[in-house]
Amino acid sequence: MAKLRVQAFSISLDGFGAGPDQGLQQPLGAGGESLHEWLIPTRTFQQTHGDGDGTSGVNEDFAARSFENIGAWILGRNMFGPIRGAWPDEAWQGWWGDNPPYHTDVFVLTHYPRAPIRMDGDTTFHFVTEGIHAALERAKAAAKGRDVRLGGGVATIRQYLRAGLIDEMHVAIAPVVLGSGEHLFNGIDLLKLDYRCVEHVSSPEAMHLVLRK
Amino acid sequence: MAKLRVQAFSISLDGFGAGPDQGLQQPLGAGGESLHEWLIPTRTFQQTHGDGDGTSGVNEDFAARSFENIGAWILGRNMFGPIRGAWPDEAWQGWWGDNPPYHTDVFVLTHYPRAPIRMDGDTTFHFVTEGIHAALERAKAAAKGRDVRLGGGVATIRQYLRAGLIDEMHVAIAPVVLGSGEHLFNGIDLLKLDYRCVEHVSSPEAMHLVLRK
Repeated sequence: MAKLRVQAFSISLDGFGAGPDQGLQQPLGAGGESLHEWLIPTRTFQQTHGDGDGTSGVNEDFAARSFENIGAWILGRNMFGPIRGAWPDEAWQGWWGDNPPYHTDVFVLTHYPRAPIRMDGDTTFHFVTEGIHAALERAKAAAKGRDVRLGGGVATIRQYLRAGLIDEMHVAIAPVVLGSGEHLFNGIDLLKLDYRCVEHVSSPEAMHLVLRK
Repeated sequence: MAKLRVQAFSISLDGFGAGPDQGLQQPLGAGGESLHEWLIPTRTFQQTHGDGDGTSGVNEDFAARSFENIGAWILGRNMFGPIRGAWPDEAWQGWWGDNPPYHTDVFVLTHYPRAPIRMDGDTTFHFVTEGIHAALERAKAAAKGRDVRLGGGVATIRQYLRAGLIDEMHVAIAPVVLGSGEHLFNGIDLLKLDYRCVEHVSSPEAMHLVLRK
């Protein structure tokens, strides 16, 4: 069965998945980049976003797994861009330039309809206004038997968590304090939702945890 | 300068320092013991509470550090015992038997006065009704230049954190889900309180983090 998976999602030691004051200048909020220090140097990340070879090891293993067998993505609107409210025009096409790192259909949750955008590298952004269940149905259909990756952000993951729709979740705890921002698990009873930690391994840069129902 | 230190304090991956339904039968709440799986096998713990030699390594290093240069302890009342409200009599003398593992003066925060209890092994329990600042003053005086260890529980640590009185804090994140219970950092902005992660190292059983102002 195709799964809904969260992968390579980083939180601070005090539980925040993004810092305060998110916006165009700091999409991850104040201090948010420090959550990803385990990920940036990896081969998987560097081959997509960088220019070098990147590292191997535990962090790379999780980075590579995060793209394995993914047939479609779901993103919250704030992860797609900093624009709130109705789309002013068609200019904003995501943070990622002409060739986004998805290479699949990507379903963006929004309250405001918009025509799909076909990007280079087989990424197509679809805008879903019918809610999280509809987005999941469309993503599963598009994934053709492969899994669907839920990219975030925090608010979107929390919605899917509460609805019990996430099958597997890889969280990386970074050894940094954020203090405020968007908390991933606050007020969500993971045990009542039947999640258990089924795998855990640490690198010097992060503690990797895999939760599964 | 003598410090106020929290040491070897374990939380779940979702941030709880104790599970739900704490009481005489499960002082750490449901699932709470699983937080301490990194600690129990260590030499330091086994030499105090067990019968064997115990392990060495990263976990043992942190277990041993937790007792180094400690001249007095502060405990919340719920950590001293399960009794709530006024003391019915003098019968309850803590969870630890005749020879508790403190071997110093221990200042127990309570709203209900009680005479000190002198135990074996140089542990004396003092009951402080004048609040957290008074307890810290008395503990520092008793520690004679050595540090004061704040043993917990969660509510007591949160009080001292918010008051900005904790100098150093070693937290161990265990790879377990608790789902509910007492959350250590919820609603506390560690960054605003000037805490930074100054040291981190992981074992297969826990991620050890040291926070300092």
